[in-house]
Amino acid sequence: MKELEDRIRQDGIVKAGDVLKVDAFLNHQCDVELFDHMGAEWARLFEGVPINKILTIEASGIGIACIAAQHFGNVPVVFAKKAQSINLDGEQYSTTIYSFTKKREFPVIVGRRFLSPGDHVLIIDDFLANGCALEGLIAIVESAGATVEGIGIAIEKGFQGGGDKLRERGYRVESLARLVGMDCETGELTFA
Amino acid sequence: MKELEDRIRQDGIVKAGDVLKVDAFLNHQCDVELFDHMGAEWARLFEGVPINKILTIEASGIGIACIAAQHFGNVPVVFAKKAQSINLDGEQYSTTIYSFTKKREFPVIVGRRFLSPGDHVLIIDDFLANGCALEGLIAIVESAGATVEGIGIAIEKGFQGGGDKLRERGYRVESLARLVGMDCETGELTFA
Repeated sequence: MKELEDRIRQDGIVKAGDVLKVDAFLNHQCDVELFDHMGAEWARLFEGVPINKILTIEASGIGIACIAAQHFGNVPVVFAKKAQSINLDGEQYSTTIYSFTKKREFPVIVGRRFLSPGDHVLIIDDFLANGCALEGLIAIVESAGATVEGIGIAIEKGFQGGGDKLRERGYRVESLARLVGMDCETGELTFA
Repeated sequence: MKELEDRIRQDGIVKAGDVLKVDAFLNHQCDVELFDHMGAEWARLFEGVPINKILTIEASGIGIACIAAQHFGNVPVVFAKKAQSINLDGEQYSTTIYSFTKKREFPVIVGRRFLSPGDHVLIIDDFLANGCALEGLIAIVESAGATVEGIGIAIEKGFQGGGDKLRERGYRVESLARLVGMDCETGELTFA
């Protein structure tokens, strides 16, 4: 999606360690007009796919997912919560996600009431790098007996391999900007 | 706002300790059509007020704020982040918020690049009870030299006093549903 790629080139900041800061428009300050265009693009890409729910994870995915939902007939958005601990009261689906940024595992939960075997789920998130967060969300959807119809990502760091692993497993991953290289010395970004 | 009050009566769950669970439509599963109507109502209430930015706090405020922003000419939404620790690198405004739910203080940060003296800010959040979170967000806006033009709340627990304290200090607080009583024995809710 050219608009998103242009915006990343304009306002993204490349840092050492393959870090791309997009907090000016995506995950700290949010450009809701851009989010709207992103939602329209996912709706175009997933046209005809039966999607009745969007799943994301707090915090950065929420704004993107809520605005995208407007392009999917206002389907409900469920956001997985990062919990302090897993509460095994049987009311929640839970899994553990390893965060490379924070270098630790954290539990993630979704209330059982909000995912059912009949659900056809589009998973949306801001970034896809190694894919750990998405693997966790997929595990939650599938433990509910629901179907992952697709995965919509804003920015995929293609060189970190998470997206290709998911595609090899048969998931449809639609990344609106797919980076194949970034250089923290020059700030240069290469899109697929 | 009648639609929100009706929805709280229909899907809200009253629990002991003045807890109102609205995770079916507001802060775990999100009804984006309801969010859209809430945004329209805040736009009506704050008509003519010069608002060029919306500030909220992760995670529950983000979806509501992003959709509300569409009714304020797509102004940028900034969400304050709950941090593990305050990083005193000078790049962030920070404050500490006491959470009665979690019974502990946590640091909250906003990047300095995203709040300036010229900003006229509408603060949006899902709940207003004792007002601790809002006091923190106001402190951040004012430490940036920006102006708090108003505060838009989905559900105010009027009997916990936080809203009245803010109104006494001169802030304009517009709560779309204002509870004056709730009874965990009968589940009865009384709106202002």
